[in-house]
Amino acid sequence: MDQNEIFKALAPIVGEEDVTVDPVELLAYSSDASQLKAVPVAVVRPENKEEVAEILKFADKNRIPVTPRGAGTSTAGQSLAYKNGILMDMVKMDKILEISLKDRIAVVQPGVIYGELNKELRKYGYCFPPDPGSAIACTVGGMVGNNASGVRALKYGATVDHVLGLEVVLPGGKIIRTGGRVWKSSSGYNLTKLLVGSEGTLGVFTEIILKITPIPKYAALIVPVFEKFDQSLEAATEITNAGILPSAMEILDDLCIMVMNSFLEEKLPQAEALLFIEVDGNNQKAIRDEANIVRNICEKLGAKQVIQSIDPKRTEELWNLRHTLANLLAKIRGEKMAISSIMDFAVPISQVPQAVREIKALAAKEQRLMAALGHIGDGNVHFGSAINVEDPKEREAATKFSRQAAESIIKKYGGTLTAEHGLGQAKSHLVMLEHGETIELMRGIKRVFDPHNIMNPMVMGLTEIPEDEYIYMPGAK
Amino acid sequence: MDQNEIFKALAPIVGEEDVTVDPVELLAYSSDASQLKAVPVAVVRPENKEEVAEILKFADKNRIPVTPRGAGTSTAGQSLAYKNGILMDMVKMDKILEISLKDRIAVVQPGVIYGELNKELRKYGYCFPPDPGSAIACTVGGMVGNNASGVRALKYGATVDHVLGLEVVLPGGKIIRTGGRVWKSSSGYNLTKLLVGSEGTLGVFTEIILKITPIPKYAALIVPVFEKFDQSLEAATEITNAGILPSAMEILDDLCIMVMNSFLEEKLPQAEALLFIEVDGNNQKAIRDEANIVRNICEKLGAKQVIQSIDPKRTEELWNLRHTLANLLAKIRGEKMAISSIMDFAVPISQVPQAVREIKALAAKEQRLMAALGHIGDGNVHFGSAINVEDPKEREAATKFSRQAAESIIKKYGGTLTAEHGLGQAKSHLVMLEHGETIELMRGIKRVFDPHNIMNPMVMGLTEIPEDEYIYMPGAK
Repeated sequence: MDQNEIFKALAPIVGEEDVTVDPVELLAYSSDASQLKAVPVAVVRPENKEEVAEILKFADKNRIPVTPRGAGTSTAGQSLAYKNGILMDMVKMDKILEISLKDRIAVVQPGVIYGELNKELRKYGYCFPPDPGSAIACTVGGMVGNNASGVRALKYGATVDHVLGLEVVLPGGKIIRTGGRVWKSSSGYNLTKLLVGSEGTLGVFTEIILKITPIPKYAALIVPVFEKFDQSLEAATEITNAGILPSAMEILDDLCIMVMNSFLEEKLPQAEALLFIEVDGNNQKAIRDEANIVRNICEKLGAKQVIQSIDPKRTEELWNLRHTLANLLAKIRGEKMAISSIMDFAVPISQVPQAVREIKALAAKEQRLMAALGHIGDGNVHFGSAINVEDPKEREAATKFSRQAAESIIKKYGGTLTAEHGLGQAKSHLVMLEHGETIELMRGIKRVFDPHNIMNPMVMGLTEIPEDEYIYMPGAK
Repeated sequence: MDQNEIFKALAPIVGEEDVTVDPVELLAYSSDASQLKAVPVAVVRPENKEEVAEILKFADKNRIPVTPRGAGTSTAGQSLAYKNGILMDMVKMDKILEISLKDRIAVVQPGVIYGELNKELRKYGYCFPPDPGSAIACTVGGMVGNNASGVRALKYGATVDHVLGLEVVLPGGKIIRTGGRVWKSSSGYNLTKLLVGSEGTLGVFTEIILKITPIPKYAALIVPVFEKFDQSLEAATEITNAGILPSAMEILDDLCIMVMNSFLEEKLPQAEALLFIEVDGNNQKAIRDEANIVRNICEKLGAKQVIQSIDPKRTEELWNLRHTLANLLAKIRGEKMAISSIMDFAVPISQVPQAVREIKALAAKEQRLMAALGHIGDGNVHFGSAINVEDPKEREAATKFSRQAAESIIKKYGGTLTAEHGLGQAKSHLVMLEHGETIELMRGIKRVFDPHNIMNPMVMGLTEIPEDEYIYMPGAK
């Protein structure tokens, strides 16, 4: 079916202004926060579930791939179209439908921006806590699709821990509901939790019911600076062993500190690592006590400086710095460079020190400029390599490096390819490493929901194709 | 295939002493904590995953139904065999394989008793928190199969929130692993969370990896007694609105209080309701403060007496009373009676007062002796009706009552049939009420894992049969 016919079929469903086949506009939709590129055959912006159903009915009948897309902040290419596929931009379904304090839930459309939802919830003293790095831009639908999380997942859980119910349009156009407004259920297979993290491969979310969480009254931030990287790992372990569950425990390595210093007035001492440790709760005295225990542990283990803040404004400033770090890092080799092959491994908690050391050594060996940062409390560490994405040699080397790192993480440390970013198109070729034969069960489940394999078919290794067909080379294809 | 042939096939796999077709022994396996009865064709007790695989290979080839069984404490008949089916007793796979404080996980076999695991974990200051009513008897495998939970789910979550990975034998005998020792993953469909709560319909768990949780240092229990049932519901709402997340918030109605009083030395005033509210944490002062806030709310709302305990021994005594309540209630009409049609509804939190009032009124109308108790904090209330299970008329009336209550709960209040007990055989006939068309997706998923439908085929409404074929009449068939 050619582009013109697709336009003619979609225009009566959503109106001409909400379907586009204009090459310039399509190009604007050809990338996300990964380094991949894929130009869709058409972009369509439905406004309600009925329009979504009509679009999927048409696409299913004509076997046209469809990729639902939120804000396009995914780092692994899961919000890109594939081969003559339709990109379904959920931007017009961006309403907060209900905030119910009595049921402690929020009901939203998928296109609502995470930061906007939390701004609204804050008025009532509540939040939806997963807090991904892309908080100010990403959509809740995208978060549900990827089981996103971030710095506060350690204490408050990932997206999957907060989704109570979904309205979903299946490929044939059927509209179903899973779960609901109840907080607890053991009734039937947990389709809701299966759909969370399914990366648009099973259907399109049109309504999302979320648990909401009271915002704790008090928080303290402790930022210890460590001469040696290993000291910081030791501190993280000791804090947990002391029975403290921080609301966040982040690690940043020397490269991150260097970058932060170029933006901080009051410079941090250049060192191998620092931690961002936040404790929170409703009792100010208890929080102060906990913060002091954390501080003492860090000092005992040789922290050369400890910044401590209980002032919300100062705390926010420090956090903002942490949140913009990924963007700052992208510039360390100059404006044209980009952090590519961002890796999002998690390993069992005890394996963090060894695994991080191994990957840093691997990078050092090939003189790769690489930053390590992440959520050390739950074993999730990101590695970002600054490469020139225009240079095929650098791309190839980065891809090789990622695979080597992935093999170590999985085979040697029992880790996972992705703790919070999703597999997307970028990691599809690595799926067998982690999932082996269980991929067949996943493919079977996909067939149940999507018999003609039209929903985002190229992610998560769900479509069996020769390895060189996968799009995983940054910038390739 | 006759019983003798089955014996001959299974004996070489597990040894003659671990397979039985003896009618007396089979009878002992014909019931669980529901009122249903089903005599298996054979009982087999495998010792390791290889034996499980051999048994499932044989059963799959010969199309013999298999039901895995833990301690048989399920209240909805999910641990019973079905029509000439094999019951697989997991009693011999009862090892705690590993407790890793460094990874904050426990690795166990399915047959380990929940209470035993927690006794072992307590030595290290940790626990696996879901705390079902059958804590001292139920197995961890059964809990995972049913997504069990209990009084502490409000703060600490249900079983599904604690399972990180599974080893599972599929019907054909293939052994797979899902998840692992990592705390966070967004890699592929979440098969682990799909398997939790699958009631033995997808495969047999042979290894379970659990998150473990530090035991909080301090806890306070507040037990307010309310003249009016509605006051207690109001108190529960106000406590939550005050930003307090209790580790437990239980409600017991007048019938429960009457029964408790017959066992307490220091009698409670007879009243319409009491709450068990527990707050816990690592800061003693903060816990005392929280307990006082809770107490003040209860007194402000007219509690006529408030029992408060921060003494661990006294607290445990009070909790023990709560935990034995279900058994005590069974005796209120005399030794031969039993609580039957235990209902395990959950509704959205705001709907609890109305839903509870409606079901109590429904019971009063037909002069049904019925107790209401449960986990009011997360909207999960149990209703237990004391009936003579030997009397077909009483059974029929109880079944009718359950269906009527279920219809209200689901259609009027947006609730779920079961918050923590599972659907089992007992609630299979009600599944369409709650799940409608999505049952087809569940059936499709079952076919992916179990193409010949041998795994516990009669639970969860997964096998499409005429309604009168379902076993839901207490004591029938």
